[in-house]
Amino acid sequence: MESKHSDDVIGRARVQDTPELEAYYKELETLGAGALWTVANDIEPWEPRTSSVPMLWKYDDLRELVLKSSDLVTPEKAGRRVVYLVNDKRKDVSAAVGWLYTGIQVTRPGESTSAHRHKASALRFIMEGEGGYTVVDGNKVTFEVNDFVITPNSAWHEHGVAENGKTCVWQDGLDIPLVNALEANDYAVYDGKQPLIAPTNFLPLSYAGAGLLPSGHNWDKPYSPLFKYAWKDVYPALLETAKVTEDSPFDGVLMHYSNPLTGGHVMQTMGASMQLLRAGFKGKPHKHTGSFVYQCAKGSGYSIIGGHRFDWAARDIFCVPSWTTHEHHNASESEDACLFSFNDLPVIEKLGLYQESIND
Amino acid sequence: MESKHSDDVIGRARVQDTPELEAYYKELETLGAGALWTVANDIEPWEPRTSSVPMLWKYDDLRELVLKSSDLVTPEKAGRRVVYLVNDKRKDVSAAVGWLYTGIQVTRPGESTSAHRHKASALRFIMEGEGGYTVVDGNKVTFEVNDFVITPNSAWHEHGVAENGKTCVWQDGLDIPLVNALEANDYAVYDGKQPLIAPTNFLPLSYAGAGLLPSGHNWDKPYSPLFKYAWKDVYPALLETAKVTEDSPFDGVLMHYSNPLTGGHVMQTMGASMQLLRAGFKGKPHKHTGSFVYQCAKGSGYSIIGGHRFDWAARDIFCVPSWTTHEHHNASESEDACLFSFNDLPVIEKLGLYQESIND
Amino acid sequence: MESKHSDDVIGRARVQDTPELEAYYKELETLGAGALWTVANDIEPWEPRTSSVPMLWKYDDLRELVLKSSDLVTPEKAGRRVVYLVNDKRKDVSAAVGWLYTGIQVTRPGESTSAHRHKASALRFIMEGEGGYTVVDGNKVTFEVNDFVITPNSAWHEHGVAENGKTCVWQDGLDIPLVNALEANDYAVYDGKQPLIAPTNFLPLSYAGAGLLPSGHNWDKPYSPLFKYAWKDVYPALLETAKVTEDSPFDGVLMHYSNPLTGGHVMQTMGASMQLLRAGFKGKPHKHTGSFVYQCAKGSGYSIIGGHRFDWAARDIFCVPSWTTHEHHNASESEDACLFSFNDLPVIEKLGLYQESIND
Amino acid sequence: MESKHSDDVIGRARVQDTPELEAYYKELETLGAGALWTVANDIEPWEPRTSSVPMLWKYDDLRELVLKSSDLVTPEKAGRRVVYLVNDKRKDVSAAVGWLYTGIQVTRPGESTSAHRHKASALRFIMEGEGGYTVVDGNKVTFEVNDFVITPNSAWHEHGVAENGKTCVWQDGLDIPLVNALEANDYAVYDGKQPLIAPTNFLPLSYAGAGLLPSGHNWDKPYSPLFKYAWKDVYPALLETAKVTEDSPFDGVLMHYSNPLTGGHVMQTMGASMQLLRAGFKGKPHKHTGSFVYQCAKGSGYSIIGGHRFDWAARDIFCVPSWTTHEHHNASESEDACLFSFNDLPVIEKLGLYQESIND
Repeated sequence: MESKHSDDVIGRARVQDTPELEAYYKELETLGAGALWTVANDIEPWEPRTSSVPMLWKYDDLRELVLKSSDLVTPEKAGRRVVYLVNDKRKDVSAAVGWLYTGIQVTRPGESTSAHRHKASALRFIMEGEGGYTVVDGNKVTFEVNDFVITPNSAWHEHGVAENGKTCVWQDGLDIPLVNALEANDYAVYDGKQPLIAPTNFLPLSYAGAGLLPSGHNWDKPYSPLFKYAWKDVYPALLETAKVTEDSPFDGVLMHYSNPLTGGHVMQTMGASMQLLRAGFKGKPHKHTGSFVYQCAKGSGYSIIGGHRFDWAARDIFCVPSWTTHEHHNASESEDACLFSFNDLPVIEKLGLYQESIND
Repeated sequence: MESKHSDDVIGRARVQDTPELEAYYKELETLGAGALWTVANDIEPWEPRTSSVPMLWKYDDLRELVLKSSDLVTPEKAGRRVVYLVNDKRKDVSAAVGWLYTGIQVTRPGESTSAHRHKASALRFIMEGEGGYTVVDGNKVTFEVNDFVITPNSAWHEHGVAENGKTCVWQDGLDIPLVNALEANDYAVYDGKQPLIAPTNFLPLSYAGAGLLPSGHNWDKPYSPLFKYAWKDVYPALLETAKVTEDSPFDGVLMHYSNPLTGGHVMQTMGASMQLLRAGFKGKPHKHTGSFVYQCAKGSGYSIIGGHRFDWAARDIFCVPSWTTHEHHNASESEDACLFSFNDLPVIEKLGLYQESIND
Repeated sequence: MESKHSDDVIGRARVQDTPELEAYYKELETLGAGALWTVANDIEPWEPRTSSVPMLWKYDDLRELVLKSSDLVTPEKAGRRVVYLVNDKRKDVSAAVGWLYTGIQVTRPGESTSAHRHKASALRFIMEGEGGYTVVDGNKVTFEVNDFVITPNSAWHEHGVAENGKTCVWQDGLDIPLVNALEANDYAVYDGKQPLIAPTNFLPLSYAGAGLLPSGHNWDKPYSPLFKYAWKDVYPALLETAKVTEDSPFDGVLMHYSNPLTGGHVMQTMGASMQLLRAGFKGKPHKHTGSFVYQCAKGSGYSIIGGHRFDWAARDIFCVPSWTTHEHHNASESEDACLFSFNDLPVIEKLGLYQESIND
Repeated sequence: MESKHSDDVIGRARVQDTPELEAYYKELETLGAGALWTVANDIEPWEPRTSSVPMLWKYDDLRELVLKSSDLVTPEKAGRRVVYLVNDKRKDVSAAVGWLYTGIQVTRPGESTSAHRHKASALRFIMEGEGGYTVVDGNKVTFEVNDFVITPNSAWHEHGVAENGKTCVWQDGLDIPLVNALEANDYAVYDGKQPLIAPTNFLPLSYAGAGLLPSGHNWDKPYSPLFKYAWKDVYPALLETAKVTEDSPFDGVLMHYSNPLTGGHVMQTMGASMQLLRAGFKGKPHKHTGSFVYQCAKGSGYSIIGGHRFDWAARDIFCVPSWTTHEHHNASESEDACLFSFNDLPVIEKLGLYQESIND
């Protein structure tokens, strides 16, 4: 009979249980200790192992419920009026995948929240509406559909929609589960609203231009000064790049939102990308470490993730867990499809944990 | 009656449960979703929150059991003959504190293991014995008591003790729980023993010298080339520094093992320090993020951690969880005490999550 | 009588010549040595000291002569058909100011040169024409008036104008005098024309977009991948920034061409900027280290440099030597003026030599 | 007849002078301009070109004269009592080689200077004496023979010898010629002596230890905090490294003084090295960019530089100009020889100008 603690390969734990050993294990347990070989094979897996499952959230299913929240609770009472999306296997940490949280927030015209901040970082991808804005550390930034906006860790932030706007819906992405797991999260509320320290859109306008950087600023923050990456600039840039670029076999034309001062990720813990799948694009399968949440920004298609097919159209949200084989396909032969995604690659890369495999 | 989902402060979720809301929550649940305000106050704590408890492992209690493992199992069968130390609140992830693993390994004269590697990083602090060595990516490094040795992630490594040596005991420190949590660990066994690529102690001797760096190397690894920090050099350096340095009120004379090519931590995910508490040193309390495992290298004293006193002497191991108030005291009025420690500060710092507080 | 070797201030050399000392100096000279105090005050000036004078080159004066060069010599015979601008005090090193070279190059439709490379870096600012292009390390980049293009050190490069284009004139900027002074220049000719390695404008299109960076490239060069900064993007970016930005009292709206991967200068030895002086802008005087060559890209105005007034209009070129007080004025009350400039700030900054003063 | 402005190779200027061209050149000259092809081949050499010649300064010849300076002038009158060594071809800029200055300074017991600072950086290599010290930005550092000490740019500094010491002689190395050429030098005198801000040798003791860095400092200067590299540590480190290292064919065991916080050069503009040539070492010839000044610290030997043999023994100083072929030989078959050197490699490397060749 083979012990449950063995693994029949040289270089792995292969110890048979015996009465003597079992007594030994018990004695160790009383001292807050254990024998490594009883757990080694479990805690040292041959390959990366995820605890998340791939999932898709259809916006058609959720939209009505999201909007209904604005009838049910006020922003004042709810803090933020958000429906969050939770992975079936990560309910204990309120994560959509891995250590990433995502939710859908709704704000009506004329509504605005008080400011707060936390060690967790946040980002937004705009889904619906007009007249929405955010204020981050005194910088007011307006946004439109498919714009990508960041709220870095420990920055005061508040959101709202202009009186003459239309109800705004956006996707929030946060690393709350990660920062909680690292036992480092905190929270503070601002007494009222922040005073503005610059004209509206000062930072996106100053830093967005054509490889130009403004003189005389001394940006010393560990995140992008760009704050907003506007779809009206991003989509043309994707199209221009697509003209001269060969597709990645896995991702089509994949571009990363970047910090123009470093060429790196937009924030310290989360990165984000926009990719264009040309009409008829059929992606090849691969897998890599890192957790990803996608939103379809344009067009429609499907992804095969961990062996399951997920069909998506604009505004649908889905996830790809770490080390899970996935491939993306544009379902249309005439229209391109665009996928926004955010991820924990800054964490994975900085800690030396990135790897990928094209073998399934 | 107050709802379990409320928090009576402006800027926090304060929604009362109603039948209508409860129906709404159930509907959301069927779609893999939830209302953020039902969990917000829990996942966004006011202050960092740890799930570990402070613990002390007395070497007097453990030593006999550790040595006994060498009677009970062979290195071949056990993989590595290690007693690991586990936090009462972190048994699910086999961690000593936070996401850090630690264990005590024993190797007899003439024993050696086959090589393996993993995405988790490892370090060793030598407790007993003579003639011990490690081979890391083809570099053989010998070690003695109180030496600190690194085995960076994905480096092939194997250990042994010379035939004419004495049984060696050392503390292992690894980030296995973290790398598992980040869903990125892997494992591979080397077929046999590694061929040596340089004379014994080539790297420690070449890089250890007095601010000198060898010409002609092209070290491009993201960890220290120093590999070994020998006590015979470290302790005199501590003493020299102590002559000209004022004590930190919390840590006495605290010095970090560093990568001489960057001034940063020795590895990407774990840092390590040695500190000297002068005779009679009485540390002040503070707390900060990051998890720490200590081993007393010399002398004796006590630490008050989270309100509990832990008395330690040479070779005892204890832990300080994240955001847990702690203070260190040298119990002797005549002899200095030295504490080795390792931590996850590279992770905490790179992700922008470090903070400290001198208020309890 | 005061000695030529003295300076009547404490902390400076103040030694009187004596017959004994003069004999001593002669003895030293025979050994390839000297007494420091005989030169100290000269080689250690109280303030930075330039050997260049401010100068202006009117394009109206030069244009005809520049074009005439295309009648007088062929590109094959001349290497490059360039009229270079030389500072009255830097003729020995063929510099326009400090260690910077500049010239005006003319290329006719259908002409193209063979490729070469050198350790000196080069940049171009386009003054006239249509259909011009450069090929840098196999990347073909087309350009139009007021575009800024780089040719980094040791990159193969060649230029030309399409058959159906119009005669192109551009300003060249190089650090030839600096690299010669540092005794590091070299030169090589390419046998023929370079094969293209990517579609035309591949790099400018891939890297120019709205804070997006292309995935999958591994740019490891120490200069900007952007290669071209097109006026059609730069001028709108200036205008957008001007809307939300307060003027620098010295420079109006000053923006630096930057490497989107680092936020730093476009090349290792030369930086470049574009600045907008609003209608009616009257700059204040200041001075700083670093040498600058300007070209007016739009509008007209004047600069007071070292006490002399220089009036400029579009296409005029002028220089500001190191530590020379200067101020810029837009002469128009209705039209903005734009000044392109390039400089040696990367050198000055990396060596820790930058300083400025608003006192004249 | 071939024009002096031509070079008979494709890709080089090969224009024949004609009366028409000569008239054209004159017209250009009146406008502060010239035709590039008349100077192109001269300012764009095929290979790096130095204006320095190799030279050796025998300490036996100089020592008496150096000491005599202390009879001839006081430190108060001379500023600093220094005999400087000047290259036969660089007298115009007071350089020993390239843009590097070197001199020999003498200070008697009980003497000390007032403090000053300058944008030029300085370093010292101690040749004779006891009780010498320097004070750099309030940090007093004592030194002994063969110690290497830095005085970074813009740091206040003063030197002296203790009352009970012995006359000290040291070599100064500065980048005065470079900083003058870059038109950025300045000078200021301190009113009196600096107050000390830390115990003697605080920085060398705190940062020198065995890969340890002190906690709690926030060193933000662009140069090494180590300030002194003591021979009593450097020579043993060289010997230890020599045990495990293969010789460079050109330089034996070559080690760089480094900044322990960056792994880079000790200062922004000058680097320094110590190398050990084993008994009987015979170096191979090579050449590279960068200028070097050597001092023999131990033993004797000879170097062949630019085809000339220079025999050196302890305390002799010699130079190797840029791109000049050189080889080093230990003349002894029983004793090792050590060469200290300093250089402008930080400049050459940061500007992308380093290259080497093993072909002569």
